[in-house]
Amino acid sequence: MKAMSFDGKQMKYDENYPDPKPGESLVRVSLAGICGTDLEILDGYMQYNGVLGHEFVGIVEKSQNPDLVGKRVVGEINVGCNKCDSCKKGMQRHCPNRTVLGILKRDGAFAEFLSLPEENLHVIPDSITDEQAVFVEPLAAAFEIKEQVSLNSDWKVAVVGDGRLAQMICQVLKLSCPDVACFGRHETKLAHLEKFEIKTRIGITPSDSQSYDLVVEATGSNSGFADTMKLVKPRGTVILKSTIASRENLDLTPTVVNEITLIGSRCGLFKPAIDALVTGIVSVDSMIDSTFPLEKFTDAINHAKKPDTLKVFLKP
Amino acid sequence: MKAMSFDGKQMKYDENYPDPKPGESLVRVSLAGICGTDLEILDGYMQYNGVLGHEFVGIVEKSQNPDLVGKRVVGEINVGCNKCDSCKKGMQRHCPNRTVLGILKRDGAFAEFLSLPEENLHVIPDSITDEQAVFVEPLAAAFEIKEQVSLNSDWKVAVVGDGRLAQMICQVLKLSCPDVACFGRHETKLAHLEKFEIKTRIGITPSDSQSYDLVVEATGSNSGFADTMKLVKPRGTVILKSTIASRENLDLTPTVVNEITLIGSRCGLFKPAIDALVTGIVSVDSMIDSTFPLEKFTDAINHAKKPDTLKVFLKP
Repeated sequence: MKAMSFDGKQMKYDENYPDPKPGESLVRVSLAGICGTDLEILDGYMQYNGVLGHEFVGIVEKSQNPDLVGKRVVGEINVGCNKCDSCKKGMQRHCPNRTVLGILKRDGAFAEFLSLPEENLHVIPDSITDEQAVFVEPLAAAFEIKEQVSLNSDWKVAVVGDGRLAQMICQVLKLSCPDVACFGRHETKLAHLEKFEIKTRIGITPSDSQSYDLVVEATGSNSGFADTMKLVKPRGTVILKSTIASRENLDLTPTVVNEITLIGSRCGLFKPAIDALVTGIVSVDSMIDSTFPLEKFTDAINHAKKPDTLKVFLKP
Repeated sequence: MKAMSFDGKQMKYDENYPDPKPGESLVRVSLAGICGTDLEILDGYMQYNGVLGHEFVGIVEKSQNPDLVGKRVVGEINVGCNKCDSCKKGMQRHCPNRTVLGILKRDGAFAEFLSLPEENLHVIPDSITDEQAVFVEPLAAAFEIKEQVSLNSDWKVAVVGDGRLAQMICQVLKLSCPDVACFGRHETKLAHLEKFEIKTRIGITPSDSQSYDLVVEATGSNSGFADTMKLVKPRGTVILKSTIASRENLDLTPTVVNEITLIGSRCGLFKPAIDALVTGIVSVDSMIDSTFPLEKFTDAINHAKKPDTLKVFLKP
């Protein structure tokens, strides 16, 4: 099959990459999305080798569940061993033996086909376009915050970062907290948030300092943590979303002195994300950027790296 | 008065240091304790200038409250402005304009006298010795964890560090969680914990890895964070207690990937600590090391820095 793989140093387009292993559901990828994590992997994060990509929508070609064949699906990316304590609690996302689509020991979505267990797949209603469906995985990561923190509608909330994930987090938090501000660096990106009545800011003013009950760090960069710690109130809560290849000279002393709670947050369940797209309480359309054919992967990555780019898709 | 002050570079013993300002309660210090934070301040933490020391017991010499005069007291170390939102919520500990005894803009306890507002003082029952009373401040910091986290008796708990604060934390957590293990580096210190049925460990074995629901980092050193992150389960909770002068190359990516909650924890309320000493549910006697006269401050500090030393006292 056609696939775009990474050997730990270089990306490579291969027309004869081995097909996914049998025994799981086989999905023909219709469209895949490039995520910040993919760019981090290309910088060395996770020391991953194999086919990249974990955001996708596709059609099931083969499955042990005949009801799934021919259906349009998205897929949860963590595959647990189903034997350990985490899996028994339904927390395959934290299975120590897990594989993760396009991130850890499992070929991903930048290919003609991928395979996942049938329990990972979610059928997508016809009202959701392919482009929208690709956002289910990162939108689920935004909804994960609501699983982890009991949001208070009186809270002042800040989101640091103005990329795709940050924008979805702003919208998701706005569902529970009217006062949401996005601290970004790119006017064109921030402009997309205005129609959702989310405040937008470039730079932190003295009146912002230590004034937010909840701050979400979603910049994907080293600098995000320092800005986040400037914004959060003493005894406030910080959600950490960025997984980055390197971090340097972080100082956790303010966390102790101000008794901040830092909560790491990763993948979420897909159902609330799919429901939010169906009902329209969250909109991803303003984040759709451009689509490249799979073999133009290098151009797509270079475009995705530009500061003003939003979601870039690959079409196998 | 006699006082031991720090000018940001050197410690200095001064027989004619200015007396504390009038308008607050004046306390003649009977005994003060040297804390890890004092050693950090001498290494540059907080850029503090003035009289060091924040653990003490003393006798009230002057006060606007006549009932306090002549009483033996300990004192909460944070003094708020009583005007801001934090103070109005009773959180003087997080007042942005606060002073902190011997740590921030307020002369401390390594002196003949100190002053604190009367609302900061707690009368100590006769059943508590002076040495025990000096432990109220750090013991309150141990009890602070119970204010911040709803402890589950089924949890496996680890405390990283075997110093004074770590030992008190072990005892306090053991009140709620039967399964507490202390990971230390000093056999003589760890031996003190055995009588409380707290497990003691030197080094982390593979079976300890990612197996603790709650891990408290109380080493006061840079290395503690990495060990802590090795021990905590995915989705587990970490309490951060160490305020240290420098931190380098911390990697928060495992916090995100494993969805760990990190909670900074500092000073606590004094009442539960005093009650615990009165009822004897926590014992600090095995941590009493030695007492130096105030003018032998340098010897006392050098002794306190030795790895096997527990609580060192200064007597003005």
